[in-house]
Amino acid sequence: MPKLDLASIPHTNATGYPPPFDTAVEGRWYRRLAPVAGLTLMGASHVTLLPGAFSSQRHWHRGQDELVVILDGEAVLIDDAGETPVGRGDILAFPAGEANGHHLHNRSDTPCVFVAISAGAREADSGEYPDIDMVFDAAGYARKDGTRYEARRLP
Amino acid sequence: MPKLDLASIPHTNATGYPPPFDTAVEGRWYRRLAPVAGLTLMGASHVTLLPGAFSSQRHWHRGQDELVVILDGEAVLIDDAGETPVGRGDILAFPAGEANGHHLHNRSDTPCVFVAISAGAREADSGEYPDIDMVFDAAGYARKDGTRYEARRLP
Repeated sequence: MPKLDLASIPHTNATGYPPPFDTAVEGRWYRRLAPVAGLTLMGASHVTLLPGAFSSQRHWHRGQDELVVILDGEAVLIDDAGETPVGRGDILAFPAGEANGHHLHNRSDTPCVFVAISAGAREADSGEYPDIDMVFDAAGYARKDGTRYEARRLP
Repeated sequence: MPKLDLASIPHTNATGYPPPFDTAVEGRWYRRLAPVAGLTLMGASHVTLLPGAFSSQRHWHRGQDELVVILDGEAVLIDDAGETPVGRGDILAFPAGEANGHHLHNRSDTPCVFVAISAGAREADSGEYPDIDMVFDAAGYARKDGTRYEARRLP
């Protein structure tokens, strides 16, 4: 069925981030759309970002394009250029390899709902978190000196 | 700039469809987002479908996943299963290789606005139009007996 029945898709706030970086995304509830829809060439998540939550730690990808479509509510985009308010109908694009760490922060008192789409080989991806002592690759997370965190990236 | 300035991106209703298949999409106005955003691993278009217009001829792709996010207005999804009303906040997914011809038809009296995202190698893509005497591949359009139309697919 091409029209996704969002309510029937399980949602979770799980994260693979090691502590203490996990708490900032506790209010990020998401539904992974690609597996239930049969998509194999892109990733897609329907995300409800509760007041106060981050969409992720501020990060960028070497190997994946990202696109975010804001469906409802408001948030603040934080990247190397500063802070930009975003809301319904806005589209945010983050090209693979552009070293501009970014995330969304919901500073409003209502949920912000968006769809996040990614494309590019996940198993060849890696990236960095400019604000914290962490980098990622396909296997998981490491400190910037190369020592690994035990946490694994979630599928 | 990750937040796209949609108003500054040129829009067009151009199509590569050969006549008489081009008239049904005259009311499909779109902005190609990937080139201006620097995305290379996905395609993305912001589409305003005027009353009466089709989003495309009913088609499916062998080599590309497609995702559609409805931002505003209403349309009817037409596919092999029949007709399904869609509107703001709905998400439609069309996996590569699934031979389920689909398109949107705006039967309302206001524009329907959506974002269409694709992933997968365009140069290896091909597909079919179940309702008309046409198939496509990377180079362009052909009749089902293999003879080519002169029209070329637009980038």
